[in-house]
Amino acid sequence: MTRIDHLKNTLSQDAMIISNPISIYYYIGQEFDVGERLLALIINKDKAPVLFLNEMFENKTSIQTVAFKDSDDIKTLLSDALPQTGAIAVDGGFSAKFLLPLFRQGRTFVDGSYLIESQRAIKTKEEQDALRHASKLNDDIMASLVPLFKEGVSERELADIILKQQSTHPLSGPSFTPIVLFSENIANPHGLPSNRTLKKGDAILVDMGGIYNHYCSDMTRTFFYGSNPELETLYHIVLKANLAAIDTVKPGVKLSDIDKAARDVITQAGYGAQFIHRTGHGIGIECHETLDVSSSNDTIVQDGMCFSIEPGIYVKGLGGIRIEDLVIVTSDGCDVINTFPKGLEENRL
Amino acid sequence: MTRIDHLKNTLSQDAMIISNPISIYYYIGQEFDVGERLLALIINKDKAPVLFLNEMFENKTSIQTVAFKDSDDIKTLLSDALPQTGAIAVDGGFSAKFLLPLFRQGRTFVDGSYLIESQRAIKTKEEQDALRHASKLNDDIMASLVPLFKEGVSERELADIILKQQSTHPLSGPSFTPIVLFSENIANPHGLPSNRTLKKGDAILVDMGGIYNHYCSDMTRTFFYGSNPELETLYHIVLKANLAAIDTVKPGVKLSDIDKAARDVITQAGYGAQFIHRTGHGIGIECHETLDVSSSNDTIVQDGMCFSIEPGIYVKGLGGIRIEDLVIVTSDGCDVINTFPKGLEENRL
Repeated sequence: MTRIDHLKNTLSQDAMIISNPISIYYYIGQEFDVGERLLALIINKDKAPVLFLNEMFENKTSIQTVAFKDSDDIKTLLSDALPQTGAIAVDGGFSAKFLLPLFRQGRTFVDGSYLIESQRAIKTKEEQDALRHASKLNDDIMASLVPLFKEGVSERELADIILKQQSTHPLSGPSFTPIVLFSENIANPHGLPSNRTLKKGDAILVDMGGIYNHYCSDMTRTFFYGSNPELETLYHIVLKANLAAIDTVKPGVKLSDIDKAARDVITQAGYGAQFIHRTGHGIGIECHETLDVSSSNDTIVQDGMCFSIEPGIYVKGLGGIRIEDLVIVTSDGCDVINTFPKGLEENRL
Repeated sequence: MTRIDHLKNTLSQDAMIISNPISIYYYIGQEFDVGERLLALIINKDKAPVLFLNEMFENKTSIQTVAFKDSDDIKTLLSDALPQTGAIAVDGGFSAKFLLPLFRQGRTFVDGSYLIESQRAIKTKEEQDALRHASKLNDDIMASLVPLFKEGVSERELADIILKQQSTHPLSGPSFTPIVLFSENIANPHGLPSNRTLKKGDAILVDMGGIYNHYCSDMTRTFFYGSNPELETLYHIVLKANLAAIDTVKPGVKLSDIDKAARDVITQAGYGAQFIHRTGHGIGIECHETLDVSSSNDTIVQDGMCFSIEPGIYVKGLGGIRIEDLVIVTSDGCDVINTFPKGLEENRL
């Protein structure tokens, strides 16, 4: 069964509009970057799928295309391609500017993201292979950084080197802008690399991922350049949380159970309030997919899911620690697909 | 009057939701990158504005914040912050996943993008200064490339060099991924740099822009590395179209008149069908803003607008030409704010 047929089978509405270029890649095998222009794959329950694509771009797939011009009235074209009455699902990222003009008497819209997300969440064997290889390449980049941890190197210099490697074949680019932070800068979980230079006693956080054949990797390691007793204390707690969460992963548990396993370790150590984000996120052809590993997500874990486990502690003024791995759920547990070491002594320089 | 007060004055709905991070920067002076999480600035007609921001990010402005957690029910929080009945405007990029759950009896939504866009379209003196300086820096990068046009250099190598310069202070990054294409590759107006290397007789298209203090530049030049009579013929036509369009710009004309000026030149030369995109686009804190210079946009040109003029001809197999400038509309015409030469002989190497 094709992926589109699978979607049609689970669709209880009369049609679906898919606008996310990554989901469109998932269903038809070609990725488009159309900027602010309309891009939409229309799946009607009882018709062949149709792709709305500006004529400036070439559709290399066998999917039927409506190749519109910049000067065309695309709101009317799009509306005419949909059932005139009934329920229509849209993906969650569909823009209000295209959605609102489609409203009319007898036509309702629902967010059908979960249909796409739940399909994309279960990775096929081929997808798992691509994810594993992407993480293997990410391990290699992490290893190549270690000799560069020298007094005076800046966060930004290291981030630039990572970006260059992530943009070199067989990788096609970063999963996200690489993050390199030293000591006190780690306290901001969304901090950006600065001109801060490395000195003895610093912790070094590297959070990065590259894209291999459309599939993303994502891993965080925290290194010590010399000794830093306060942050090393946090390291032991975060590593224990990381391992406890991974140990919990198997088909049938809830994602919230996995979050709880990590959060309990950190809370019991007295840092619950400093673990200010979810434990993880789904990953695949996007770096952040559905499958939040959070206290509020009771989604049941299934064989073939892939997500991150990334507990962290962030203390303003002092710094922070995060240790992140990707796991693929197996029939009775999970495989950690990145293998770069995470023991404290192994990552001390 | 603050920008938010100006928006309130033009708002005929009871409230507005602004989700575009760039527009939020425009109104409150801080830019956020929250990934797939909710980011929304709520402007109620009769209340102070409120920013919905995940607690992971810091609001450094004086705007009141609802700092929600990943585990919060943000749909309810957001809905509660809006008028329970009445009309609510949203910006065009607001995602269906956040919008659809807000629908309820007695509450309607409209795309209010034009309110933001029409305000952002008229640049203040300070904004014009930033745009001029951004284009000045873009001129400098273009000039720095010329000595690098040597036999054997690849499109990708040149694009990488541009990207590096665009990421170097005082520029904070590219307005868009730089485009460098040689001869036949220019035929695709959205082509990406490849490993194709430069050889005698090639045309070289460079389309690039950097971001200076939040403001974008964007310029295209086509060079000749030696002689290429077929593409040179096209160059003369495109340059004439570029100049004709610029000559048309002044307050009171329609954007479609400007498109027509360029299109008429190219059509009369027999290449109308090969000029497959609009003549230009608005630019400011985003590289593509409203103000499409297209045959279907009858928006009246006003003093303080800024947009691109970028006619092009694309011939499959042969190649193409595009020449792009940015103009700022003045009281009686326009200033071309990038000054890199565009005469054919000046750009022959």
